[in-house]
Amino acid sequence: MTREAKSQKQGNIKKRGKIKISKYAPICKWLPKYSKYQAISDAIAGITLGLTMIPQSIAYATLAGLSAQYGLYSSFLGGFLYAIFGSVKEISIGPTSLMAILTMEFTKGTNPDFAILLAFLAGCVEFLMGLLDLGFLVDFISLPVTAGFTSATSVIIIVSQIKGLLGLKFQSANLIDQMVKICQNLMNVKLGDTLLGVSTILILLCLKNLSNVKFTNDGLRHVIVIKALWFFSVGRNALIVLISSVITFYLHQAGQTPFVLSGTVQSGLPSIKLPNFTTVVQNQTYSFMDICSHLGSGIIVIPLVSVLANVAIAKVFSSGSGFNASQEMRTLGLCNLLGSFVSSMPICGAFTRSAVSHASGIQTPMAGIYSGILTMLALSFLTPYFYYIPKTVLSAVLISAVIFLIDWKIVQQLWRGSKRDAIASIGTFFVCIILNVEAGLLVGIVFNILYLLYLSARPAIQVTERMVTLELKYLSVQPDVGLFFPAVDFIVNKISEIADERASDNIPIVVDCQRFRGVDYTAIKGLERLSKDINERNQCLWFVNLNSKVTNTIQKLGDLNNLKILKDESEVIAILCEHDSESIINFKFVKEKPKKEIPMQTIITPIEVESLLTKEHNINPQTKNRSS
Amino acid sequence: MTREAKSQKQGNIKKRGKIKISKYAPICKWLPKYSKYQAISDAIAGITLGLTMIPQSIAYATLAGLSAQYGLYSSFLGGFLYAIFGSVKEISIGPTSLMAILTMEFTKGTNPDFAILLAFLAGCVEFLMGLLDLGFLVDFISLPVTAGFTSATSVIIIVSQIKGLLGLKFQSANLIDQMVKICQNLMNVKLGDTLLGVSTILILLCLKNLSNVKFTNDGLRHVIVIKALWFFSVGRNALIVLISSVITFYLHQAGQTPFVLSGTVQSGLPSIKLPNFTTVVQNQTYSFMDICSHLGSGIIVIPLVSVLANVAIAKVFSSGSGFNASQEMRTLGLCNLLGSFVSSMPICGAFTRSAVSHASGIQTPMAGIYSGILTMLALSFLTPYFYYIPKTVLSAVLISAVIFLIDWKIVQQLWRGSKRDAIASIGTFFVCIILNVEAGLLVGIVFNILYLLYLSARPAIQVTERMVTLELKYLSVQPDVGLFFPAVDFIVNKISEIADERASDNIPIVVDCQRFRGVDYTAIKGLERLSKDINERNQCLWFVNLNSKVTNTIQKLGDLNNLKILKDESEVIAILCEHDSESIINFKFVKEKPKKEIPMQTIITPIEVESLLTKEHNINPQTKNRSS
Repeated sequence: MTREAKSQKQGNIKKRGKIKISKYAPICKWLPKYSKYQAISDAIAGITLGLTMIPQSIAYATLAGLSAQYGLYSSFLGGFLYAIFGSVKEISIGPTSLMAILTMEFTKGTNPDFAILLAFLAGCVEFLMGLLDLGFLVDFISLPVTAGFTSATSVIIIVSQIKGLLGLKFQSANLIDQMVKICQNLMNVKLGDTLLGVSTILILLCLKNLSNVKFTNDGLRHVIVIKALWFFSVGRNALIVLISSVITFYLHQAGQTPFVLSGTVQSGLPSIKLPNFTTVVQNQTYSFMDICSHLGSGIIVIPLVSVLANVAIAKVFSSGSGFNASQEMRTLGLCNLLGSFVSSMPICGAFTRSAVSHASGIQTPMAGIYSGILTMLALSFLTPYFYYIPKTVLSAVLISAVIFLIDWKIVQQLWRGSKRDAIASIGTFFVCIILNVEAGLLVGIVFNILYLLYLSARPAIQVTERMVTLELKYLSVQPDVGLFFPAVDFIVNKISEIADERASDNIPIVVDCQRFRGVDYTAIKGLERLSKDINERNQCLWFVNLNSKVTNTIQKLGDLNNLKILKDESEVIAILCEHDSESIINFKFVKEKPKKEIPMQTIITPIEVESLLTKEHNINPQTKNRSS
Repeated sequence: MTREAKSQKQGNIKKRGKIKISKYAPICKWLPKYSKYQAISDAIAGITLGLTMIPQSIAYATLAGLSAQYGLYSSFLGGFLYAIFGSVKEISIGPTSLMAILTMEFTKGTNPDFAILLAFLAGCVEFLMGLLDLGFLVDFISLPVTAGFTSATSVIIIVSQIKGLLGLKFQSANLIDQMVKICQNLMNVKLGDTLLGVSTILILLCLKNLSNVKFTNDGLRHVIVIKALWFFSVGRNALIVLISSVITFYLHQAGQTPFVLSGTVQSGLPSIKLPNFTTVVQNQTYSFMDICSHLGSGIIVIPLVSVLANVAIAKVFSSGSGFNASQEMRTLGLCNLLGSFVSSMPICGAFTRSAVSHASGIQTPMAGIYSGILTMLALSFLTPYFYYIPKTVLSAVLISAVIFLIDWKIVQQLWRGSKRDAIASIGTFFVCIILNVEAGLLVGIVFNILYLLYLSARPAIQVTERMVTLELKYLSVQPDVGLFFPAVDFIVNKISEIADERASDNIPIVVDCQRFRGVDYTAIKGLERLSKDINERNQCLWFVNLNSKVTNTIQKLGDLNNLKILKDESEVIAILCEHDSESIINFKFVKEKPKKEIPMQTIITPIEVESLLTKEHNINPQTKNRSS
C-alpha cells in the first residue's frame, strides 16, 4: 500500500467516525461551520418562532384540558434538545394541536399528572423505537399521502384560526363543528379584530414577496436596500406581532381595547422532578398501573402519531440531504422523556411552527434555543407584556404561514400520471378533514401498502420462445420479483396453463429464476407440486439461474431431487442438442447443488443462439459427462 | 389458416367456454365423468359425514346459545349448494366451532333471529367479496401459517373432545379452562365411556392402516379381501358409530345405559321464509338497523373468518389442481344467504368434518348431498334413533380424525431452512391456542406481510464496475424489484453514497432500470432530487433500460429533462467512446422519449465489451447525430 493510499484510508476512517457521531448528534455536522449569516437568520427565526410558540402553547394547553403554564412548560426543552439531536432544521418540537387533541382524548377527566406521565411513557416508547431502528417504518408514507396530509392539516389550521381572526370565542369539537359555529356566530364578529387580522394577512403576504423584488442597478445603496427588504421579509412575523402589541399597549393605556388579547399568563419556571407515578383524582388514588390502564392505547398511539407527524414535516422540508427517521424517533423520545421532568405534556414537531420557521429563513436547529430561551424568559419575566398580543394577529400569522402549503396542483398532476397516487392523496385529505388526521394518514398508508402487496402477489411473468435450431426450441418463463407465498399459486397456475397450451408440441419449459431474491416454504412446496404435475405428464420443466441462497433454502426446506435444476441456459441448450425428445424427459439431474453463485445472466436470444453454440466455452463441459 | 388449425381453434374456444362455466359451477367438471367407484366412495363418506355432522351440529348450536334444531337446520343446505358450486371436495359446509363461538360473541343475550340475520348479512358480504374477486386476499396465508393454524385447531378440538371421551359434563370458556376443568373432574370420569372411547380410537387407528396391508399372491379371493379391507378402512367411522349405537340400543333395551348418549333431538324440517328483519327481545322491538348496530363488526368478522377457514382447509387438502378463492367466497355467500331462509346460523367449512371426509375417502363434493339428505331425514324421521349414539364414540371419531393433522416435524424443518417461516408458524400456533384462532391467523399473516413490505422497502442493489477500454469505465447500479415509495429514500441514499465514494475518479454512474416494474410519484421526485444533486457536483448519472410504461409515468408526473435517460448500455458506451470527461458532463440529452419499448436487456460484461464495440449495429447510430 502506498503512503498516499494509507493516508487516504486514514482520512476515510476519520470521516466515517465523524459521520457516526453526527448521525446521533447532527449538531457536530453544522456547528463547526456555523456562520454569522446563519446566526442572524436563526436569531430572527428563533424569535419569530418564540413569539408564535408562546400564545400557541397557551392555546394548546387549554385544548388539552390543562392550565396555561403547562403549555409553556412544554415549549422550551424540546427546542434545546432538538438543536443538539435534531436533523431537520425547520422542525420545532413543542405542544401541537395534534398532540393536544390526543392528550385530551386519553386524559379526559383526570389531572395534569396523567398528561405528564403520558409524555414520559410516550417518550420511552419513541426512544425504544429509535433504538430498535424502526425508522424504516416511515418510509411507508409516500409523497402523495404526505401532500394530502399537509393540505388537510393546513385547511384544519386555517379554519381553526378564522375564529380568532374574527374575534369570536367558542368551543368546537371538529372542523365541521367549527364551520357551523362560525356561521352561527357571524352576528358576533368583531370589526376591529377582523380588520386588523385581514390587513395583517395582506401585509404578511406582501412582505413575503419583498425579497423577490428585483432591481436593475447594483450600487452600495442598492445592496443596503436589498438587505433591508430581506430583513423585513424574513422577520415579518416577529415584526407584525411586535408592532401590533405596541399599538395595542398604547391603546390599552389610553383606555381602549378594540381587539381580543392573549390574556394573562402565570409566571415562574417549572421545578425539575420525576413525573408523579401515583396520583389522586377526586379522592381516588391511582397507582402507576391504574394510570397506564387508563391511558391505554394512548401509550402507543401518541408515539406513532408524533413520529409520523415529525417525519411528514421532515419529508416536506428536508430537501436533498435526507434525514434519519430512527434518529428523529430517538430525539422525540428524549424530548418527551426529559420534558416530563419539567411537567411537559406530550410534544412533537408542529406543522404550523415549522412553516413559520421556514418562512422566517431558518438556517439550523439553533433557532430552537432562541425560541426556548424566549419561552423561559416569558415564563420568568415577560408574561405581563405578552398580555397585549392581539389574538387576531397570531391567527393571521398562522394562516399566512400555512396557506401556501395547500397543494391542489399535485392532485391534477397525479390524476394524469398515476390514479393510484391521486386516490391515495385525495383519500388522505378527505379522511383527515372529515374524521381526523391520524385516520387520514392511516388510510393513505394502508391504501399504498395494499398496492405493494398486490405487486408481490401478482408478479409479471415474461414468456419467451427461444430457438436453438429450427427444430430445437424451448420456452423461457421469467417471473419478476422473488417467489414468496402470495405469488406462488399465481405463478404455479400460470406455468401450468402454459404447459397445458403447449402440451401438443411438448416443448421444454425453462423457468428462469435469476430474479428470485429469495424463496420460502410455501414457494418451494408450490414449485415441487408443479414440477411433479408437469413431469407426470411427460413434459420437461427445468429451473435455471438459481442463486446459491435460493438453492440452499430449497435444499433445507424441500428436496432438490423434486426439481430439475440446471446451472444456466447454456446447459439447457447443451442438453437439448445432445438428446432426442424421448431421452430428454428421462435425463437424470445431478443431485449436487451448483458450486458457486452464477455471476451474471446469459440470455440466449433467437439470433444469438447460433453464435453461442459455436463458442465452446459457453457450454459447460460437465454437462456432457453427466449425460453420458 | 389450415382446416386443422381452424378446428383446433374452435376446439379451444369450446374448451374455454366449458372452463368458464365450470369456474362458477365446478360440478360441470366432475359430474360428466362421475364413476361408480366415486359414487360408492361418496356415499360412504357422505353417510359418515352425516353421522358426524348431526351430533356435532347439535353441540355447536348449544355452543352458539341456540336450541338444538338450529344446528340441524344449518347442516343440509350447505352440503347441497357446495356440491354444485364448491371446488374442494373435502370441505363440508355447516355449523363449526369457530362460527358457533363467534355467533355466540355477537348475538349474546338476544334471540335466534339475530343469529339467522347474521348468517344472512355475512352471506351478502361474502358473496360481494366473491363478486369483487377479492379471493387474492387469501394468497396472503402462507403454508407455515396454515400449518400452525391447523395444528392449533387440532389441539383445540382434541382437548375439547377429551371431556366427551371421559364421559364428563361441564361448560368451559377456552382451552386452558377446559384443561383445568378436566383435571378438577378427574374423580367423575366414567369408566364405561372412557373404555369405549379409548378402544374406539385404537380400533379406528388400526382400521385406518388396513388398506395399507400388502399381500404377495393375487388370486380372485385375494382381490375380494383387499376390497373388503379398503371398505372397512374408509367406512370405519360410520361403521363404529353404527355398531356402538346398536350395542347401546340393546343394552338400553336390557335396562342398562353404561355410556353418555347423544340424547333427544327435536323433529321436523324448518319452514322456508325470509329471515325476520325486525324482532322483539324482552319486550323491546329491534328494527333492522338496531339489529345491524347490535351485530356490529360481526358483519365483517364472520365473513372474513369463514373465508379464511375455508381457504385454510382448501390449502391443506387441495393438491395440484388448486382452487379458486373467489369462487369459494361466492359459494360460502350463497350457503349463508340461502341458509338464512331455512333458519340457519352462520356456517362455513369445518376442519373436523373435512378431516373425516378425507379419512373416509371422499371423491367429489357429492358427499355433501348424502350428508344433507341424512340430516333432513334425521330431522324428519330418525331423531329417535340418533338418541343411542354414545358421545364418547363421536369424540373418538373426531380425535382420531384430527390427531394426524398436528405437524411437529414441519417446525423443525422450517427452523433449519427459514427462521422467518418457523416463527410465523410457531407464533400462529401459540396465539391460536392461547387467545383464539382468528387472532392466531391474523398474527401469522401480519408477520408474513411485514417481511414482504421490508423487501419492497429494502431492495437489493447490484453494483458492477464495467470496463469499456482500460481508461473508459462506468459503474452499473441495478436495483431489483420496482421502484416504489418505500424503497426510494434507501436507493437514493445508496446511490448518493456510491457517488460520494467515487467522486475522485469521476466515474459515470449508470442506473439500470430494467427491473423496474413501475414507478410512482415519490420515486420520480426522489430520482429527480438525486439527479440534480449529482449533476450539480459535475458527476454523471444516467438512467438506462427504462421501459415505456415507466418513461410514460415519468413524463406525466415529473420532467424527463431532469433525468438523463439513455436507451441502453450500448448508448452509454457510444457516448463514453466519443466524448472526453469534460464534454460528457455537458452532453445534451434528447428530450424525446424512446419510441418503442426496449425488447431485451443487453448487458455488457468486461469481457464482452470489446467484441460488442466492434459490432457496429449494437451502437445506436442515432447517438452520433444527437451528440454532434
